[in-house]
Amino acid sequence: MSDVSAWRELFVATDARGLAHLAHAAGVAVGSLDQPSHGPRSSLTPAQLRAGVRALDICPPDGVDLNTVLDELGAAVWAHGVHPLDVACVAHLHPPSVVPAVVSELTIASSNQSMDSWDQSPAATEVELHLMDFLGTRIGFPASASGVMTSGGTASNLLGLTLARSWAASKIGVDVLTSGLPEHARTWRFLASNQAHFSVQRAAAQLGLGRDAVVSVPTDDTGAMDIVALDATLELLNGQGLVPVAIVATAGTTDLGAIDPASLIAQRARDVGAWLHVDAAVAGAFIMSERLRERLVGLELADSVTIDFHKLWWQPFNASALVVRDVERFDLLRVRSHYLDRGDELEGMVNLVGRSLDTSRRFDAAKVVASLRTMGQRTFAAMLEHLVDLAVYAASAIDASDDFELVAPVSTVSCVFDAPGRDADDLRRVQQELLADGVMVLGRTTINKRAALKFTFMNPLATSDDVDELLSVVAGRLRG
Amino acid sequence: MSDVSAWRELFVATDARGLAHLAHAAGVAVGSLDQPSHGPRSSLTPAQLRAGVRALDICPPDGVDLNTVLDELGAAVWAHGVHPLDVACVAHLHPPSVVPAVVSELTIASSNQSMDSWDQSPAATEVELHLMDFLGTRIGFPASASGVMTSGGTASNLLGLTLARSWAASKIGVDVLTSGLPEHARTWRFLASNQAHFSVQRAAAQLGLGRDAVVSVPTDDTGAMDIVALDATLELLNGQGLVPVAIVATAGTTDLGAIDPASLIAQRARDVGAWLHVDAAVAGAFIMSERLRERLVGLELADSVTIDFHKLWWQPFNASALVVRDVERFDLLRVRSHYLDRGDELEGMVNLVGRSLDTSRRFDAAKVVASLRTMGQRTFAAMLEHLVDLAVYAASAIDASDDFELVAPVSTVSCVFDAPGRDADDLRRVQQELLADGVMVLGRTTINKRAALKFTFMNPLATSDDVDELLSVVAGRLRG
Repeated sequence: MSDVSAWRELFVATDARGLAHLAHAAGVAVGSLDQPSHGPRSSLTPAQLRAGVRALDICPPDGVDLNTVLDELGAAVWAHGVHPLDVACVAHLHPPSVVPAVVSELTIASSNQSMDSWDQSPAATEVELHLMDFLGTRIGFPASASGVMTSGGTASNLLGLTLARSWAASKIGVDVLTSGLPEHARTWRFLASNQAHFSVQRAAAQLGLGRDAVVSVPTDDTGAMDIVALDATLELLNGQGLVPVAIVATAGTTDLGAIDPASLIAQRARDVGAWLHVDAAVAGAFIMSERLRERLVGLELADSVTIDFHKLWWQPFNASALVVRDVERFDLLRVRSHYLDRGDELEGMVNLVGRSLDTSRRFDAAKVVASLRTMGQRTFAAMLEHLVDLAVYAASAIDASDDFELVAPVSTVSCVFDAPGRDADDLRRVQQELLADGVMVLGRTTINKRAALKFTFMNPLATSDDVDELLSVVAGRLRG
Repeated sequence: MSDVSAWRELFVATDARGLAHLAHAAGVAVGSLDQPSHGPRSSLTPAQLRAGVRALDICPPDGVDLNTVLDELGAAVWAHGVHPLDVACVAHLHPPSVVPAVVSELTIASSNQSMDSWDQSPAATEVELHLMDFLGTRIGFPASASGVMTSGGTASNLLGLTLARSWAASKIGVDVLTSGLPEHARTWRFLASNQAHFSVQRAAAQLGLGRDAVVSVPTDDTGAMDIVALDATLELLNGQGLVPVAIVATAGTTDLGAIDPASLIAQRARDVGAWLHVDAAVAGAFIMSERLRERLVGLELADSVTIDFHKLWWQPFNASALVVRDVERFDLLRVRSHYLDRGDELEGMVNLVGRSLDTSRRFDAAKVVASLRTMGQRTFAAMLEHLVDLAVYAASAIDASDDFELVAPVSTVSCVFDAPGRDADDLRRVQQELLADGVMVLGRTTINKRAALKFTFMNPLATSDDVDELLSVVAGRLRG
């Protein structure tokens, strides 16, 4: 047998010596973030970045001192990341992280609880359940609500639509998880607006229905689902013998931030017996603001809701949730295993594997709870409202400018615009140049076949002066 | 507009002041792990844990000081976790974390790169690709290999089988992601041993084929797939007009650690035109040891391989990968989006969203690289070999004992046993008592309908003396 003592320092121990070692290493890791300032990103090319990274031998025969390793990664990697806290990082729903969440990652990883079974996460399981109840209450769900943490909005949407598929099958007496899609499934359709996130199509693909099973519902000028078009679509499907098994309402589309009218959609879902899933990955945080909550009216009528903490809750990746109005719906998913979730445990032991598409799963709920408790509701709401105000400000500045034209009104925290007299190639050139030069990480997308640029405001420290500056830089590049 | 300065301290900034603040908070977080020692877990009941956790108001109107929040979580949560570094924590494939990985979580979360698009993770994308190439080389794949990080073994298996499904469909001219499962899919079968992880069945369920589409192949006395039985199964399927679209070989089953004969299985897969997926979540780390690598012979013949860093690579959750022998196979999956992965970027920009079932995704590759580079290959291999030796030692001690009987020979790092003259209820009582009392987190499972107990050795600091002590404690409880 080996002498194990040589390995002791490698592992996180919670005795005094172990914690002192961990604290020291944590300090070195923080120090490795101290890199020459580069704006939103450095200007290295993919080839240059590759050369720097490939110079690191991932696993040499003998280990390298940890301080050296962390410093090397600092120089090769952290110096050349994208900085979401930079005011010129405005391309994506890519937030800067809050300190309570980041330092909680240390405790999450040290403790390394796994959320699949109670005997790998006893207290952690209770924290996740507590957070899910908190979300259920904020959403306005009945006491029957609960949920589960997922790895992202895409995974949450997939889980919601997996439940919807099982629900539809159960109504015709089929256990789809056991026997697969029945013949009747050829008639099943998911409805979502033409601005819905592409994860809805991916979910349909994954579930065996195919992307063609997603029926795209037209949107109005704001990018929100057109309810008259929804009614027409439902009628059309009915005439064709097709079954709307789920309707996805989006609360905050990816580009325009548009919020579908959930109340009206909920009525239709009820009328046709469809599962209502609300993808609130973007605007779900509005449940935390009295002023903004009313924009989500009807959210409480959903069967399942996607909440994405790594967007407007300022959590580092990954942290998301699927919340269901009735916890019993998870029974649709449940697969017992011989070694987990046996169903013969002591009173009160919950094995969350029964709710999840994952097995081993990190304790992301801890960082969310630490962050919300540190921020408090008033500060959280104020930061969120500031970002909405910033997007409105950007829209008014664009309206007042000769260089730009709004593509749609602002709904949430993004602002999509183009430039009169410029074509898609011009916009692409500007966006790629700004990215390559490390000047701005600007969004670029296509709305109704119209090429456009996009600001997404995720950083509450940004101000209206910063917006003016961003517009001025883009205008300058467009000219030339 | 709001005065944003009040919020500055909430966000991770990389200037001198921001880093000092982060380092201080990291120290407080580490300190919150300093809790009264409790062995593998505290003895609080689920109800007691719940009361402690529910006493925390998740989001009070005004925020609470961060130090206080971290201390509260320490007392309510971290004090009552399961401690994977405790030698009596032997139930699951649940590893203690290494320091380089844990402190890398700080940098991962601070930098908050998102792996879906290059413009959210420029250097990070290169690191993930470098790590995937390293894995491909170690596996013995050709230079065409690459891969992608996933959230866990379950997700890796799902991704591998998603590719297999698309591959099977493409051979009959069907784009299954677009048009859904064709009629012919009713004949599609996944083959896996009766000891394969339940995520294979879950993948089939998710993909619309249903768990019934997984054909269970009998195993030999070690728990490895019986190749004669595989041949018989393939012949039977052929006679029934059923199509083996994928064969899953397991390299390290969940309970017995058994390794299926990948070389022999690869021959059959080639003969019948099936995709070969190897679930090497458990024993994949053997690619790092000269002594153990030979047990994986044939791994290099797979189409896709699951590697699970949060098992025998001692990474905190989540960190896994799917490696494919030919990167072009990811084209089977690719869905372009308007705002990511447009295909018109500058030379060398890779958007990893095209390989993943996720969209936003954390930069877990960083912690794996930091850990491997710090440990070095020799130390890594020595720790792994020690765990295998420990399982062999446990088996010999069980063989020599009158209290216990081995259920199967040891293959990897687990040891499954029962007690002569005791029934399933006795074993359940002992396992639940030890868990409830906080004395031992012991595994319990069922092998071929035979109830059993299980040790899983994940902690390289454990010794043969510790194994003797564990057996003595279990024997005492069984008598008592």
